[in-house]
This record gives sequence, structure tokens and C-alpha cells, in this order.
Amino acid sequence: MTTARSIRLAARPKGLATLKDLSLTEDPIPVPGPGQFLVRVIWLSLDPYMRGRMDDAKSYAKPVDIGDIMQGGCVGEVLASHHPHYARGEIVTGAFGWTTHAVSDGEGVRKLDPRLAPVSTALGVLGMPGITAWVGLNDIAAAKPGETIVVSAATGAVGGLVGQLAKAKGMTVMGLAGGADKCAYACEVLGYDHCLDHRAAPDARTLGARIAEVAPQGVDVYFENVGGKSLSAVLPRMNVHGRVALCGMIAWYGGQNLDEALPLPLVWRTVLTRRLGVQGFIIFDHFHRFPDFLKEVGPMVADGRIVVREDVTDGIENAPVAFLRMLEGGNFGKTLVRVGPDP
Amino acid sequence: MTTARSIRLAARPKGLATLKDLSLTEDPIPVPGPGQFLVRVIWLSLDPYMRGRMDDAKSYAKPVDIGDIMQGGCVGEVLASHHPHYARGEIVTGAFGWTTHAVSDGEGVRKLDPRLAPVSTALGVLGMPGITAWVGLNDIAAAKPGETIVVSAATGAVGGLVGQLAKAKGMTVMGLAGGADKCAYACEVLGYDHCLDHRAAPDARTLGARIAEVAPQGVDVYFENVGGKSLSAVLPRMNVHGRVALCGMIAWYGGQNLDEALPLPLVWRTVLTRRLGVQGFIIFDHFHRFPDFLKEVGPMVADGRIVVREDVTDGIENAPVAFLRMLEGGNFGKTLVRVGPDP
Repeated sequence: MTTARSIRLAARPKGLATLKDLSLTEDPIPVPGPGQFLVRVIWLSLDPYMRGRMDDAKSYAKPVDIGDIMQGGCVGEVLASHHPHYARGEIVTGAFGWTTHAVSDGEGVRKLDPRLAPVSTALGVLGMPGITAWVGLNDIAAAKPGETIVVSAATGAVGGLVGQLAKAKGMTVMGLAGGADKCAYACEVLGYDHCLDHRAAPDARTLGARIAEVAPQGVDVYFENVGGKSLSAVLPRMNVHGRVALCGMIAWYGGQNLDEALPLPLVWRTVLTRRLGVQGFIIFDHFHRFPDFLKEVGPMVADGRIVVREDVTDGIENAPVAFLRMLEGGNFGKTLVRVGPDP
Repeated sequence: MTTARSIRLAARPKGLATLKDLSLTEDPIPVPGPGQFLVRVIWLSLDPYMRGRMDDAKSYAKPVDIGDIMQGGCVGEVLASHHPHYARGEIVTGAFGWTTHAVSDGEGVRKLDPRLAPVSTALGVLGMPGITAWVGLNDIAAAKPGETIVVSAATGAVGGLVGQLAKAKGMTVMGLAGGADKCAYACEVLGYDHCLDHRAAPDARTLGARIAEVAPQGVDVYFENVGGKSLSAVLPRMNVHGRVALCGMIAWYGGQNLDEALPLPLVWRTVLTRRLGVQGFIIFDHFHRFPDFLKEVGPMVADGRIVVREDVTDGIENAPVAFLRMLEGGNFGKTLVRVGPDP
């Protein structure tokens, strides 16, 4: 390979993102300057937050500019280094982007030990989605044993871990997922007590009635990844002093499903009369919790108490298709692109 | 006076409450049984939450039944007692309802010392609205010196105290109120740094632009009493890690002003990307804080650091008109009905 191949933002999506909004480009492999090193990317993580970076809206992070390489977390191998702390052959994780090769000065980069866990887990259960699940459940929602939690996107990179951690904590755990296969997996493999297929419910009212059947005790914690129909179904089922950990709203990222939103006055009334707490959170504010997270969850992954499922697509050129599929809920587990061979 | 006069719920309001929903009745003065005492009511408190009790909706408290006396907090004088702890002539506060005379077994009743403060303050600044303001500011919103707060219904029974306590705490304090006279009062008497007249703004966007002009630093805490246009104007101005103490939503209690609500997906996006916390609260959950509240705020009222303004209507028969006027924002300060003469 003599060129670097990258996926760049070609146009800002109008509503739903499409393949035309992303383009594959070839460039010379970048050359590391003093204090820099060159990485070949092995794994690229695809995450729902990336959809937000494609918009020019004010958000917690700068949007990707038109023509720039899409941002993303990666695992890669150091090919050449002028950096004192990184040597050729080392495996690292960092925000190298949707590309086969990148140059880095080491900022935000962490070395991985391939003997401890498969290196791809640094992008999933032992990386950003993992700490998101753990912080959301413990620090944001203050979830307690004996409580009932609903997790939307129940088998996703974040939701799949939330459900397993909640179960390990002694909670009653209900998932919402799109499709019977995901629901079966949630219950049979991840240990959810129940999982409801939101695609099988024609509307939020029907889904809400199913939640009430399965959890007549009500819902104490809602781990919110989705918005849309799921939110509209869960919120009216929340118990007094319930908490909503607002982590994502994938159903609404492209401006679709807006008709599935409850009217704000009804939401406000529910939050007031049931004394709910709704807390938005972005994991970048909580990275200081990484050591505590790894200390607790690392051993659970190592000894198999936590099940990891990856949804792997091969080739950087296929990243756009895999990304759009994930936004529509077509992924099953942590979405990854295998950009290059394992070392 | 040989009969008790009371205001009863005649019909459940359809949307906005009207005079037809409330009726004045005369009955024999009730006779206290063993362990009970008879109170003549001196002051009746009118509060926005009472509108909710007129509906048959699931809420934090049981609705008033059709034909029952409207619930409400009062100050009264014990006329006769078969209760060991209450004696004739004592002044007490309790939920005696919209009536001239009530019998009580002492549950939820507290004795007042008229030498410490005017007894009507037990229904306002040193009573439920007062502790609501104090708990919302300190325990719910965790407001800090140097931060910027917006208080809606800025001169109301709750808001008027929130603003003064926030100022005493060293915050930048902005009020939203209906009318130029209330805004002038907020700044000149209560010490608000700014107060915007929401009635003068044709829509939420205009009001929001005014907030941005006056507080370009953004809003850290929103003490929410109103919903509607005020909420839609403030929320987009909230800073990262801001908090909303959701105390009331008077603009929406009658099902009006629904078109002034932001779309939920936009609200959800703002809560997520700015990492806002929205916490609904009902003061009944926080009465254990009453001693701490009185210890801090009592002296501030006694020495005049806290200004109290009462909006007094004479006669139980005029309570319905005063109540409807308050729901429309026509009150100015803590709304009270003088039901009988001071002792």
C-alpha cells in the first residue's frame, strides 16, 4: 500500500445522511515530522455521535469541515516514529479518523497491551462506549440494586454493556431493541429480564402498554440512547424520583421521527409531578473516571462475565455503508471497521 | 357568624378554570369531636398548584372530588378544643381549605408565634412558597455564587424569594415577569439585576434575544415556574452544565399556550449537548429541611433583608376571582385571602 485512503465529509446531510455525503479519497501516506509518529489503522470505531459532527450546528464538539477526514476513534500500529514515547510496532488507540494512515503527536493517544484483551475492545467495551455505559449507570443515573431500568438500543455498544452491568448490580433490566433477533440475544446472552421489539409496536402507546405489562412496578431508571418512540413509551411509565440518563437520541439525529415526540408540556408535567431528574451527559466530561471504570469492568471482560459482540465490516471503503446502516439500527453490537490486518 | 362558608369544586375545568367550576356554600359551623379542635380561618393561601387538584389526572396528590371543599393552606385561630395540645385562642397554620371554619385533629398543624412575624408570612415567605424557593435554589439547582440565574414569575410568592436569595448569594439575577410594573418592582425593590417583561415580547424568539443581550454570559440556573414562552426563551440560552429546577408550569396548567412549547427533540438535544440537568421537585418531599430553612431565612425576614409583598383579597366569597386572576398572572406578590379579622 503506497497511498492513504480516507473517508471525507463531502456535503452536510439534509436530514438523513446518505452515501453522497461521504467520499473516498486517496492521498500520499503522510510523513511524520519531529515529535510525531505514523500509524496504520487496524480498527475504526463507528459511533452514533459522528452523525452530529456532520452538521454545522452548535454542539459540544467542533463539526467536521467539508472536505476533512471524518473524525473517529481507532486502534492502530506505529509504523515509524520520531516521538520519544512511541516506538515502531506498538499498538495504540487514538482519534486517528476514518483513514488507513495517520500522523499523530501523541495527544489523546493511549498504548494498548494486546495480551490483556483483544485490541478492538479499546474501541468498545473497554473504551468510550464502555465508560459511557458505566458512568451513565453509576454516576449519572445513580442506579441502585432492586430498581427497574429500561435500556434503549439494548444490544448496542453502550446499551449492551449497560444491561449487563445493571443485571450484575441486581436490578430488574428491560431492554428496547429493533427486531426479534436482538431481543432474543438480549435475554438469552446478555441476561436482560425482558426485551421488547420497538419495531413490532405500531406506536408509542402500544409499546408503553407492553412496558406496563412486563414491568407493572414502573421504571426507576431510563438509560436513553434513542429518543423517538422509545422515549414516548417509557417516560409515562417512570416512577416517582426516577432518573433519565440522557446519552443519545439516535432516532432524531437526522431530523426524522419527529412526530413520535411527546408534547413538551406533557413531558414537563411528568418530570414535575413525578419529580424526575433528566441529566444529559457527554463522556468527554468524565474521562477522569477511566481508571475506576477499567478496574471494575476490565476483569469482568477478561473472565467472560461481560459478553462482547462486535459487528465488523471489512475495508475503509465500506465504512460509509456500515455507518448509515448503524444509524438505521442495522448493526448488531459494537460497530467496527477492520481497516487493516492484525499485527 | 353562625354558618361556615366554603368554596367547593363544582365542576372539573375543561382547559382554563372558570368561576362556574367553583361554588360558595353555607353549612352549619362544624363541631369538634374528641381529640379535635375548631378553627376560624384568618388567612387562606392561593397557590398555582391548586389548579392541578381540580383535574382528575394522576398527579402527586389526590384530586379534589366534585362537591368537596377546595384544599389550601390557612392560618387560623382556635375557637374551641378537645385536643390536648391546642388551646382556645392559639394561632395555627394548617391545610384547613377554602373555608371560614374547619375542624382538625392536629395533623399537619403547626402553632405560630405572632410576636416573631406577621402570621400571614406562614403562608408565604416563611411557609410553603418560601421553603420551595430555598430548597429549589440550594438543594435542587445547587446554585453557586458568581453564576447567572433566570427566575420566571419573578415577583411571585416563590420567584420573589428566589431572586432575593440568589442576589444575597452573590449571583447575577434575571427575572421574567408579566408587565412593566412587576419588572420595575423586581429591579428596584427585590434587587434583581435585570427583569424582562415577557408580555412585551411577541414570541419566545424575541424574548430569547433580549435575554442574550442582557446576559451574554449565558444562563447557569433556570428556576422554572412557568413553562410556555419563558421556557422556550431561556432553554436555548443555558450554559454547559446548567441546571433547571422545575417547580411549576403555570402557563400550561389549563392546557393553554401549548403552541409556545419548543419541540421535544430540540429540548432533548439541548439537554444532551449542553449536559443540562432538569430536576422536577415537589416541596412535600423536602419538609425535613424546614428547620434549616427557617434558621436561615427567618432572620432575613425579621431584619428586612427579605422584602415581602402580599396581594390581599378580602372575603372567602372572593377567593375564586382572586384565584383565577392569579392563574392569569394578575396577582402581584403572594396571593392571600383575608377570610376573617386578625385576633
